[in-house]
Amino acid sequence: MKKEKVVLAYSGGLDTSVILTWLKETYGYDVIAVCVNVGQEDDFEEVKKKALATGAVDAYAVDVVEEFITEYIYPTLKAGAVYEDDYLLGTSFARPLIAKKLVEIAEKEGAVAIAHGATGKGNDQVRFEATIKALNPRLKIIAPWRIWSLKSREDCIDYAQKHNIPITVTKNKIYSRDQNIWHISHEGGNLENPWNEHDESIYMMSVAPQDAPDEPTYIEIEFEKGIPVKINGEKYDPVTMLTILNKIAGENGVGTIDIIENRLVGMKSRGIYETPGGTVLFKAHKALEKLTLDRDTLSFKKIVAEKYAQLVYDGLWYTPLREALSKFVDHTQECVTGKVKMKLYKGNCVAVASVSPYSLYNEEFVTFGEDDVYNQKDAEGFINLFALPLTIRAIMNEKKIKEEKEVI
Amino acid sequence: MKKEKVVLAYSGGLDTSVILTWLKETYGYDVIAVCVNVGQEDDFEEVKKKALATGAVDAYAVDVVEEFITEYIYPTLKAGAVYEDDYLLGTSFARPLIAKKLVEIAEKEGAVAIAHGATGKGNDQVRFEATIKALNPRLKIIAPWRIWSLKSREDCIDYAQKHNIPITVTKNKIYSRDQNIWHISHEGGNLENPWNEHDESIYMMSVAPQDAPDEPTYIEIEFEKGIPVKINGEKYDPVTMLTILNKIAGENGVGTIDIIENRLVGMKSRGIYETPGGTVLFKAHKALEKLTLDRDTLSFKKIVAEKYAQLVYDGLWYTPLREALSKFVDHTQECVTGKVKMKLYKGNCVAVASVSPYSLYNEEFVTFGEDDVYNQKDAEGFINLFALPLTIRAIMNEKKIKEEKEVI
Amino acid sequence: MKKEKVVLAYSGGLDTSVILTWLKETYGYDVIAVCVNVGQEDDFEEVKKKALATGAVDAYAVDVVEEFITEYIYPTLKAGAVYEDDYLLGTSFARPLIAKKLVEIAEKEGAVAIAHGATGKGNDQVRFEATIKALNPRLKIIAPWRIWSLKSREDCIDYAQKHNIPITVTKNKIYSRDQNIWHISHEGGNLENPWNEHDESIYMMSVAPQDAPDEPTYIEIEFEKGIPVKINGEKYDPVTMLTILNKIAGENGVGTIDIIENRLVGMKSRGIYETPGGTVLFKAHKALEKLTLDRDTLSFKKIVAEKYAQLVYDGLWYTPLREALSKFVDHTQECVTGKVKMKLYKGNCVAVASVSPYSLYNEEFVTFGEDDVYNQKDAEGFINLFALPLTIRAIMNEKKIKEEKEVI
Amino acid sequence: MKKEKVVLAYSGGLDTSVILTWLKETYGYDVIAVCVNVGQEDDFEEVKKKALATGAVDAYAVDVVEEFITEYIYPTLKAGAVYEDDYLLGTSFARPLIAKKLVEIAEKEGAVAIAHGATGKGNDQVRFEATIKALNPRLKIIAPWRIWSLKSREDCIDYAQKHNIPITVTKNKIYSRDQNIWHISHEGGNLENPWNEHDESIYMMSVAPQDAPDEPTYIEIEFEKGIPVKINGEKYDPVTMLTILNKIAGENGVGTIDIIENRLVGMKSRGIYETPGGTVLFKAHKALEKLTLDRDTLSFKKIVAEKYAQLVYDGLWYTPLREALSKFVDHTQECVTGKVKMKLYKGNCVAVASVSPYSLYNEEFVTFGEDDVYNQKDAEGFINLFALPLTIRAIMNEKKIKEEKEVI
Repeated sequence: MKKEKVVLAYSGGLDTSVILTWLKETYGYDVIAVCVNVGQEDDFEEVKKKALATGAVDAYAVDVVEEFITEYIYPTLKAGAVYEDDYLLGTSFARPLIAKKLVEIAEKEGAVAIAHGATGKGNDQVRFEATIKALNPRLKIIAPWRIWSLKSREDCIDYAQKHNIPITVTKNKIYSRDQNIWHISHEGGNLENPWNEHDESIYMMSVAPQDAPDEPTYIEIEFEKGIPVKINGEKYDPVTMLTILNKIAGENGVGTIDIIENRLVGMKSRGIYETPGGTVLFKAHKALEKLTLDRDTLSFKKIVAEKYAQLVYDGLWYTPLREALSKFVDHTQECVTGKVKMKLYKGNCVAVASVSPYSLYNEEFVTFGEDDVYNQKDAEGFINLFALPLTIRAIMNEKKIKEEKEVI
Repeated sequence: MKKEKVVLAYSGGLDTSVILTWLKETYGYDVIAVCVNVGQEDDFEEVKKKALATGAVDAYAVDVVEEFITEYIYPTLKAGAVYEDDYLLGTSFARPLIAKKLVEIAEKEGAVAIAHGATGKGNDQVRFEATIKALNPRLKIIAPWRIWSLKSREDCIDYAQKHNIPITVTKNKIYSRDQNIWHISHEGGNLENPWNEHDESIYMMSVAPQDAPDEPTYIEIEFEKGIPVKINGEKYDPVTMLTILNKIAGENGVGTIDIIENRLVGMKSRGIYETPGGTVLFKAHKALEKLTLDRDTLSFKKIVAEKYAQLVYDGLWYTPLREALSKFVDHTQECVTGKVKMKLYKGNCVAVASVSPYSLYNEEFVTFGEDDVYNQKDAEGFINLFALPLTIRAIMNEKKIKEEKEVI
Repeated sequence: MKKEKVVLAYSGGLDTSVILTWLKETYGYDVIAVCVNVGQEDDFEEVKKKALATGAVDAYAVDVVEEFITEYIYPTLKAGAVYEDDYLLGTSFARPLIAKKLVEIAEKEGAVAIAHGATGKGNDQVRFEATIKALNPRLKIIAPWRIWSLKSREDCIDYAQKHNIPITVTKNKIYSRDQNIWHISHEGGNLENPWNEHDESIYMMSVAPQDAPDEPTYIEIEFEKGIPVKINGEKYDPVTMLTILNKIAGENGVGTIDIIENRLVGMKSRGIYETPGGTVLFKAHKALEKLTLDRDTLSFKKIVAEKYAQLVYDGLWYTPLREALSKFVDHTQECVTGKVKMKLYKGNCVAVASVSPYSLYNEEFVTFGEDDVYNQKDAEGFINLFALPLTIRAIMNEKKIKEEKEVI
Repeated sequence: MKKEKVVLAYSGGLDTSVILTWLKETYGYDVIAVCVNVGQEDDFEEVKKKALATGAVDAYAVDVVEEFITEYIYPTLKAGAVYEDDYLLGTSFARPLIAKKLVEIAEKEGAVAIAHGATGKGNDQVRFEATIKALNPRLKIIAPWRIWSLKSREDCIDYAQKHNIPITVTKNKIYSRDQNIWHISHEGGNLENPWNEHDESIYMMSVAPQDAPDEPTYIEIEFEKGIPVKINGEKYDPVTMLTILNKIAGENGVGTIDIIENRLVGMKSRGIYETPGGTVLFKAHKALEKLTLDRDTLSFKKIVAEKYAQLVYDGLWYTPLREALSKFVDHTQECVTGKVKMKLYKGNCVAVASVSPYSLYNEEFVTFGEDDVYNQKDAEGFINLFALPLTIRAIMNEKKIKEEKEVI
């Protein structure tokens, strides 16, 4: 009799190697190992070999880096979505893409289940599973960390040794990390005490501000409808562009944050995130919006961004609400075309100049006579009506006070 | 016959000196010059003397610096209100306080009108006048820039010379500035082209990041219910505390921004703002909120902050809505007590550590057994129900697709 | 020499007849009278004749009823936009359409100005003028009521008699009214005292609930993507459909409201609005959304509806924000397809039944086994994590109380 | 050895009678039965007797009707909080109060656990348990419906008969109901098909509109700071007042709704709710707010109401956010004092007149000269600046179009 298949989100690390074996032993499944390349620094051919060596019946390495940028990062950039004011959602929006690929392979392979190595205390389990449920609610989901009796890294090492699973455990793993082309996160270790200052030597995509060059670096970024298309006048494909920006920004110590955040599962956690290129893009994009969007749109867009960020953080990418918000956002971006000059210097990243054919700044003086566009005398009428509710209230209060005095 | 009185918001500069005389000539008023000290660097005794020399019947210099901090800055800090993501409202919330003092003196002196030197193109006229209308709707308001025939600085100088008004015009005034203990703003000049990078030599409260010390400076700020009470363990009165923070932050190049903003009167403008100490306080306060506020409260507080910032920017301080928002905010601050360690370095200002007796971080592991507080097995049930709407929609879609196939 | 032309929004009533003559006398313009038919009950050929008899050089009657429904009413219906919880925006969204037609004719005719008869105290002046400015900022706008010396209806009658303007003034006009195919409004007269109950005999599209039939009337309304397409199984064009609904709902006393509202220009006013068919459509549409939209989308859509209603009320139809909100709304309506049974009875209008191929209600039990879709055991995990922030806070408080006791 | 105690939320009905016995059998607990009187129609002495007869070691009947009104209903009324536009939260805000009483008795009695009879598919389990966790996180919670093997009403009857539990099962229970002084809900039975019109004979607090009197009934309700204090000029205590309103409104067929709602646990359900007196209060309160609150406050209060309703619906009463929102609300109610005349007629319930010493309507004409408060000429300036962003955008577009033409 043919065995049922499970698709495993596989990284080649200790945890997912152990899970691979555990799935075979526990459920008798044929395991298909899938490694989704969202820009993490790995040798994917090696990972595939390792999967097969560990007992997978098949192994995939799927490169989705460009799709990641254009279909997940850019919509979020256009939305200006930032979780709790700081976190640029680097892990959050990678998860639905990875899960989508797992579902696609599961459907192609006729698998009955998907397994992942996310723990029971974090957000990633929710992001993976919500996506799977949205895309194929008939697939069984297996999250070994919530089920098995292994409780720690040490338990995993024991299990691997007992089952002859090939692992490379060179040193203590202090931090829990997640990397892709947009960012790297660091959690755990001594970060768990919020009174500990984090050690800047943990950085992997950036240098510490102190170690950055003594001279500022300038970059000009050009956007079309909210999407970055050129750096310093040169057109690049999305992957190359982000790679270049990561390099320049990382060298200038730009884009690291250290925050306490609220996980969806009800607890707070602390994380260090490096998002060098992404930070430059978000700041440049915002500067261009300030030049091209009107006040009302900018203000309501913040409400949208807040909701968008929550949905992305919570793994609710494949929902009608997230999609509808994106339709709103896309329309606002029609005029977000132009150029922003960014200055990077020892951790600072500021927009110092901007220009746009759709600029709403100062146009009035160019084509119209001053009095046609803005007549200072209009201000009196404006203020009188704008402040009329205050006047009316003041008169009401006056009357009340007078009446109360008369009573006494 | 006794003359009617007007209260003039007087600074001793060219504009208000000319206005003083113009009010006498145009309306035959007795002019009472009032200079409200919100922390700008002026010799207020000199200003009073100058007012009298220019023809005022009386001159006041009112020190409201502490009231400014405790009654206007702190509520806004607690609200986390920032206009268009960047502007810390330095000019905005000074205006209602100045206007309140003008009204109080007008009422005490029996004046019939208040005059101010704000132009007809800016926000300040709205802030002044909305406040006056809210506090005493029977006072006449005179805004000479919207009425008289003078159109420029040169016109004012001519007027002053013709009327023997004592003015000191030493050099061309390039930028329009507004200063108080919280900030200084710079507008005009070559800033009006948004493609010009601003010249850092204009800074008055700060140095440029490049000129800041090569070593970071650490400060510990302690808050009680959202209000800063100690620096590095020392208790200070509000004025001293902000003065110290301005000095330290300014020396480290912290707190300057360069933005395009949307004025209430419908146009965009560009401004450079230096808010050194304020920037440190806002960032420290936010870090402490991340440790002590729950996710729901943090998220809704952003909606409140957005509205609060708009109201303050628009001069609607004395409104029931602004007050009601403050009641909301105050309740959220009950637990925002604790200490934040800030690292200032060449323009960077980051919270590197925080601690609070009300911390919601990690407390669970301290007093409860792990399984009582967070059982990883709970996550499965949580995800199943959290994602149930996605599952239901997916099933609905599946059924739809099946039905459509059957039709074909 | 050829005269300059002005386009006048002309109704054939007293005010605009007087304005027509006044424009000629005051500015020497050639006046082009334009009557836009948005469904008000008028004989448009008569109106045109009257305009020419009064001295217009040309007269247009433009029928835009269908465009009004499909391009203004339906987007607002889909948005669920209701001003201050009650007002279905009947006058508000007619104004931008009328103004657009005025601009189109002005451009075609080479006119230099547009004139309208809205007063200086209301919203309509803003709606007309904001639209004109958005569509053609070079057109001059003339609002005689803000300029001329006439102050009342009596002044207009005098003016008309002096200038031989043909008017029909049969009786005292008590109420100020505005009608189109969506609604009729009544303002003024004894309504101005909010303690007066309004007299139901003023109704023009409806009967009072007491005078409606003693038996309920049922109607089934079918929607496709948020747009009504059938009544009781019959397909109708938009104009016929709304006419039928107005008749049925009006006969059942449905859709009249009596409210105090906040005008954009800072004051409150009181109005009686009859929107019989519209009320049925809004309630039916909402019932269908409850069946087909998920909780998150429904909730955020309320935020959007609130903003949408304000923009429409304020005359900001032709703005990027209104358009972007419509993009959001349209996406949410993809599944708002189905049928709602409405019961109309003596002023009551309730959805009593609904059905949709996209229903999100109860689908789970149809195709999946119960345990697959909803396992009651999941609820414990859900609650434990959902309420985790409350637990953590409770533990923190417990610890605080214990520490405080130890101190004492 | 002494047994551990459990506090059971006991109603005397079939389910909780079975649970009482099951708790003893399963855990060996001493059961303390607690019946919280929130206004449901029960003979509480009988209920207590029955609890003891069924084996409880002690039985409480706690009357909290007045506390329910003043501490839960009034804050929600002032907030204007309505879930999904229709549901007046009758069951939702009773649950935290009941749970609070359970916790208080558990603490007094030294119980280790609380048990309730809510099912695993509904909201009430969340509301009970979230409250318990917030108030005493050390109490164990037992929800038998999520644990035991009984699956239906029939299983319960069998269990009762086997264990000699005294039950009164006179007829088939078709609907699941929840009643208190504010409302009664009906769920289940043939309501589960949304295409079934509900049968009006199920009403228990109201008559159907058709059966109501043929003449309207008028009531005047007087509020002080948002709280109802008098009916028709008579002062009543809160319980009497609500009882009177329920009677009058119920007799006039007012306050029944039939809705599809989104449960917190991710599914939709359908419910019929009767809230006769509450409906009158909400509508009267809203009418008074329209007279006394300014536009900005009214609009933002809707955002607050939406969040408030969600928190209450979700059982998050005892949270810092709900409390902070109440502080906001309370401040807005300072001026919500006055009188509203309500007209009730065959299901209709409308405010026909209102008056307030704090009215913001029309006061201007009373004490000020017209031109001082509202000068129609101000409108031009107002519109010019209000619409300036539209003008600027139009000019920008004009320039763009011209440039594009030149290129071609």
